[in-house]
Amino acid sequence: MSRQFVNELADIDTDFAQWYTDVILKTDMVDYGPVKGTMVIKPYGYAIWENIQNYLNKEFKKLGVQNAYFPLLIPESYLKKEAEHVEGFAPEVAVVTYAGGEELNEKLIIRPTSETIICAMYSKWIKSYRDLPMAMNQWCNVMRWEKTTRPFLRTSEFLWQEGHTVQASKEDAERDTRVMLKVYSDCLRNLMAIPTLTGRKTEKEKFAGAVATYGMEAIMKDGKCLQAGTTHDLGQNFAKASNIRFLNKDGELEYGYSTSWGVSTRLIGALVMVHGDERGLRMPPNIAPIQTVIVPIANHKAGVNEKCKEIFDTLEACGVRVKLDDSDNTPGWKFNEYEMKGVPVRLEIGPRDIENNVATAVRRDTHEKVQLNLDNIATELNSLLAEIQSNMLAQAERNLNDAIVETNDFDTMVESINAGKVALAYHCGDSECEDEIKQKTTIKTRVIQEYDTKHKCIYCGKPSRYKVYFGKQY
Amino acid sequence: MSRQFVNELADIDTDFAQWYTDVILKTDMVDYGPVKGTMVIKPYGYAIWENIQNYLNKEFKKLGVQNAYFPLLIPESYLKKEAEHVEGFAPEVAVVTYAGGEELNEKLIIRPTSETIICAMYSKWIKSYRDLPMAMNQWCNVMRWEKTTRPFLRTSEFLWQEGHTVQASKEDAERDTRVMLKVYSDCLRNLMAIPTLTGRKTEKEKFAGAVATYGMEAIMKDGKCLQAGTTHDLGQNFAKASNIRFLNKDGELEYGYSTSWGVSTRLIGALVMVHGDERGLRMPPNIAPIQTVIVPIANHKAGVNEKCKEIFDTLEACGVRVKLDDSDNTPGWKFNEYEMKGVPVRLEIGPRDIENNVATAVRRDTHEKVQLNLDNIATELNSLLAEIQSNMLAQAERNLNDAIVETNDFDTMVESINAGKVALAYHCGDSECEDEIKQKTTIKTRVIQEYDTKHKCIYCGKPSRYKVYFGKQY
Repeated sequence: MSRQFVNELADIDTDFAQWYTDVILKTDMVDYGPVKGTMVIKPYGYAIWENIQNYLNKEFKKLGVQNAYFPLLIPESYLKKEAEHVEGFAPEVAVVTYAGGEELNEKLIIRPTSETIICAMYSKWIKSYRDLPMAMNQWCNVMRWEKTTRPFLRTSEFLWQEGHTVQASKEDAERDTRVMLKVYSDCLRNLMAIPTLTGRKTEKEKFAGAVATYGMEAIMKDGKCLQAGTTHDLGQNFAKASNIRFLNKDGELEYGYSTSWGVSTRLIGALVMVHGDERGLRMPPNIAPIQTVIVPIANHKAGVNEKCKEIFDTLEACGVRVKLDDSDNTPGWKFNEYEMKGVPVRLEIGPRDIENNVATAVRRDTHEKVQLNLDNIATELNSLLAEIQSNMLAQAERNLNDAIVETNDFDTMVESINAGKVALAYHCGDSECEDEIKQKTTIKTRVIQEYDTKHKCIYCGKPSRYKVYFGKQY
Repeated sequence: MSRQFVNELADIDTDFAQWYTDVILKTDMVDYGPVKGTMVIKPYGYAIWENIQNYLNKEFKKLGVQNAYFPLLIPESYLKKEAEHVEGFAPEVAVVTYAGGEELNEKLIIRPTSETIICAMYSKWIKSYRDLPMAMNQWCNVMRWEKTTRPFLRTSEFLWQEGHTVQASKEDAERDTRVMLKVYSDCLRNLMAIPTLTGRKTEKEKFAGAVATYGMEAIMKDGKCLQAGTTHDLGQNFAKASNIRFLNKDGELEYGYSTSWGVSTRLIGALVMVHGDERGLRMPPNIAPIQTVIVPIANHKAGVNEKCKEIFDTLEACGVRVKLDDSDNTPGWKFNEYEMKGVPVRLEIGPRDIENNVATAVRRDTHEKVQLNLDNIATELNSLLAEIQSNMLAQAERNLNDAIVETNDFDTMVESINAGKVALAYHCGDSECEDEIKQKTTIKTRVIQEYDTKHKCIYCGKPSRYKVYFGKQY
């Protein structure tokens, strides 16, 4: 750690983009990689990803999803098996053309996603209805060559999990996509204190090769939307392309119904942009790499360091993710540092606190100070952390609700979205109409809220098909 | 799961290679990927890797090593920074030459290992002695284009962890490599019941670019050695190539001392080849994905399925990795299946067992049957699992000791090694002499046991430098 005082961050209200870059770099979450568009995820950022992994692994296990690992390199011919899929990904792939000192006979694609290779394996493994459902997940890196990149939000390489199931019926596959969407939105709500808008994506915005895509949108502090996770009902499209067939109970060969679903390290970007403030990050306790930092005060005085260490041990034994910063940096430097890093609670412990048998807890979310009794420190701290978690979720929910403007007037919608809002409006469902809106305004549909044929499209005036969220996106 | 009876395995004594392939494929640990030399790690194999990850992550944390993630693609120029390093890896790299629809200006290498890119980042992050030690680890995929491949043992892509530290002194860096070698050998011993030979590698066998490499060798059932993990003292070589300099306490700029260390999914291959027998896998309980399988007997009889479910719940609540197989396959099929999968304990529970308030436990390691009291099933089972773990370690230790032949006669050595042994012999330390032995016999040095200048080299007769293990390798 360098000991100089951390620099100021750009103003969050007037330059959100620069604030974001400042905060993720200065809190040691991430750095730029040497190849354009790549990132290095540093320990403070990676720990967030590990907490997401732990949460989701437990949920996947409950649902019978097993982790596995499929190869990075996909033969070019595989990507071409499903027509829409190749079109969707061809422009953004990275290609290996030689290896082991020789030019390759067939080009190999670094996976932009693994439907094609996983379906090819499933085709080999699935023979009968008894083999279904087949449900596997992998945690891995994927590569999509992007022109404009920003760490966590859009990078050439990113980390994600991709789950892939095959079911014996259309209904079961559709249920998988809905169940997983719920798993994801619960993860964001419970772990990250991020409320989301969930629903089906429009035809225009669905995944290349899917029958239907469901999305989860989080709303950033500037009002822009971030697609935080998607689940895809692939119908029999990939099963037909990869020949996934099973003998059903009547002894007939049938194509399987597949799904896929994923969340990625862009969730870390969402965390920053939903909760951050002018002083830096704010971490919800459930996902915080450091839930509490202990800062000794006047620790040249006898007993202070010892007491701090004792409290550290108590808290760690109780499962709190606690850090004791007994470095020779000044308390002021430490306050600044851990505020910027968004540590939910700072515990200040000095001679007077010890005399009074308390620790002074400072909340990152409200800046309030509370005295915690040292005899009961773990219990009191855990209550405080729980209170912060629910307070942060409530704040984020208020922000989400405040951001939504319901309108069916196009100019009002554009104006509102340009002013940092998300609009809820009727649309005809026509992809060309949707595309015209996008071309004109850079506004895109996010997720469908409900189907409704009684109103008029906000843009073309034809009968509506659904009510859908519109917004700008990361 | 297909319901047909599993096929026989090749004979372990007469065709160990085919036995290995049979067992890993038939137990659903792995399958071949579509690109030559790649593998798909299926859930039963991947669960082993996850158990290794959990063990090592705890150890790394104790030592202050933090997880992070560095990019997959390395600019070609990076690999060339360290002369020996580029020579070591150039023939086996896979190269990305175009991406995003365009030919790249600089070729990008899929990491065969990440020293060069991590050192480049460290060079940016490290400024002062206060930043040291810097110690990060990543769990990731790496790629080395191999001509002859076998799942887990040698594949183009594999999973591993690679730790990288920078220290302010030579001694501290050297200590890191020794501490990590101990972490690895403890992991194999405690988790996988695999004893190892550890020590420094010879000059000829060290890592490309290292000052010294330390290795951990496990001995397979056929007497061949498997390099199961290595730690590298890189001295200042990479620090100089990447310009990692820090201001020391006297205010002078100094190059750092770096290390790297890793274990990979080849450990799964070691597990198979150290413990397997004619019936298939044998999993030490501490690493077994399934520690116990419950097989209901005569479960058309009232109460059998219910009792099995009750016991399953009890064991799961106590943290046992337990599976209840209440499928309509026959008990005979299930016995065969879980024996082949190496599940340490099978619990048979039928009407008579229930009447006697017991479960019949069948050990995979000794085939013994034991009655466990149902009132106390979790405690009794856990003792049994602990006993199996230590019995399997003891067996593996006997096998290791039996495999070692101490000799200083070259013909005896070659004969012994060809007969499935490992030899311990004196060597002059000269790389050319070592190379001649290898050319003539395919026998290589494994790790140095101890330095000794009082004897003669087993091959050239010059004064010895050390006593070293010789063997054939995977």
